[in-house]
Amino acid sequence: MRLSTRNQLTGRVTEVTVGAVMATVKVRLDGGEQVVTASITKEAVEELGLAPGVAATVLVKSTEVMLGVE
Amino acid sequence: MRLSTRNQLTGRVTEVTVGAVMATVKVRLDGGEQVVTASITKEAVEELGLAPGVAATVLVKSTEVMLGVE
Amino acid sequence: MRLSTRNQLTGRVTEVTVGAVMATVKVRLDGGEQVVTASITKEAVEELGLAPGVAATVLVKSTEVMLGVE
Amino acid sequence: MRLSTRNQLTGRVTEVTVGAVMATVKVRLDGGEQVVTASITKEAVEELGLAPGVAATVLVKSTEVMLGVE
Amino acid sequence: MRLSTRNQLTGRVTEVTVGAVMATVKVRLDGGEQVVTASITKEAVEELGLAPGVAATVLVKSTEVMLGVE
Amino acid sequence: MRLSTRNQLTGRVTEVTVGAVMATVKVRLDGGEQVVTASITKEAVEELGLAPGVAATVLVKSTEVMLGVE
Repeated sequence: MRLSTRNQLTGRVTEVTVGAVMATVKVRLDGGEQVVTASITKEAVEELGLAPGVAATVLVKSTEVMLGVE
Repeated sequence: MRLSTRNQLTGRVTEVTVGAVMATVKVRLDGGEQVVTASITKEAVEELGLAPGVAATVLVKSTEVMLGVE
Repeated sequence: MRLSTRNQLTGRVTEVTVGAVMATVKVRLDGGEQVVTASITKEAVEELGLAPGVAATVLVKSTEVMLGVE
Repeated sequence: MRLSTRNQLTGRVTEVTVGAVMATVKVRLDGGEQVVTASITKEAVEELGLAPGVAATVLVKSTEVMLGVE
Repeated sequence: MRLSTRNQLTGRVTEVTVGAVMATVKVRLDGGEQVVTASITKEAVEELGLAPGVAATVLVKSTEVMLGVE
Repeated sequence: MRLSTRNQLTGRVTEVTVGAVMATVKVRLDGGEQVVTASITKEAVEELGLAPGVAATVLVKSTEVMLGVE
């Protein structure tokens, strides 16, 4: 399926922390040292088998992105 | 100001397209070839002086991040 | 690609309105009369070839969903 | 109160899972078999009395909706 | 309808700017000088009759709120 | 850092509730009695030292703001 979602960055999971209904997953982006944190449902973590070392794509809708300048 | 926003990725603006009230800004992330698109207000583009070549930080709240696996 | 995105509803595009940088797309959900409106970039509309009659999946992250009761 | 929120879909709660501060609620949409998952605060679940069988409206801002095509 | 949406702040519209599909609306919050900007669809502006002087409630889901400290 | 984020409201933390991975923080806005609830990560609460009495800025992207009228 092709998505309208503008931002699709490739990386690899480095850390997963699971709570009662939510979880946080950290992904190191390919080609750099930058890390992205995702807050998703525990259900999604289990369904996708997310664990350290798994290759994952980070998706963010463009309307969710803010910019800052010094 | 320190922010609760988990995702703060550094990069440089490559393209700005301005509409009547909204604008899209493309930022190439440092340390890689990955590009992020932001849909922000025209007002913010003008206030921040966003234009190709300007260094910018991409900010995304962790609850806005989705993950995909092959 | 399997997605963490909890909500993936099938439907068919009924209307597309394009602005300078943003667009609105209306999708009638399968199995009912309910219609969903998406505000996405003009760029995504063009890339995906969205037009009336096209089958489309509506995706919404669960953290974006609110509930109301009478 | 009339809302700017474009998407207001009617349905019925089928499942509620409550954590320490967050909760997930599943709602089956009327006129079909499609189910929506909402991640909302535990506080909201208690205030609204959300439980299986309760009629509920699913609300989503149009800027939060993504589209996919095969 | 009672909403799960945690943030419902009362105020009054001070400015409306309409584009092809999107619009920005500024609302001064009651009991202070703080102003909120909303980016909503042109369609919603028309349906709700939003114009300077109109009393309006600002709604924001708690998962969309970030915090900063000096 | 100057931000594209349109909404930056000043206030003071009144309550913090921490779960396994998420937390809710309540902030009373300056110049009024209105309170904002933020759902952010536990990690952010700890990093920023959020606790009752701490001055905090509430940040919300304009695309996340909805409006209601009676």
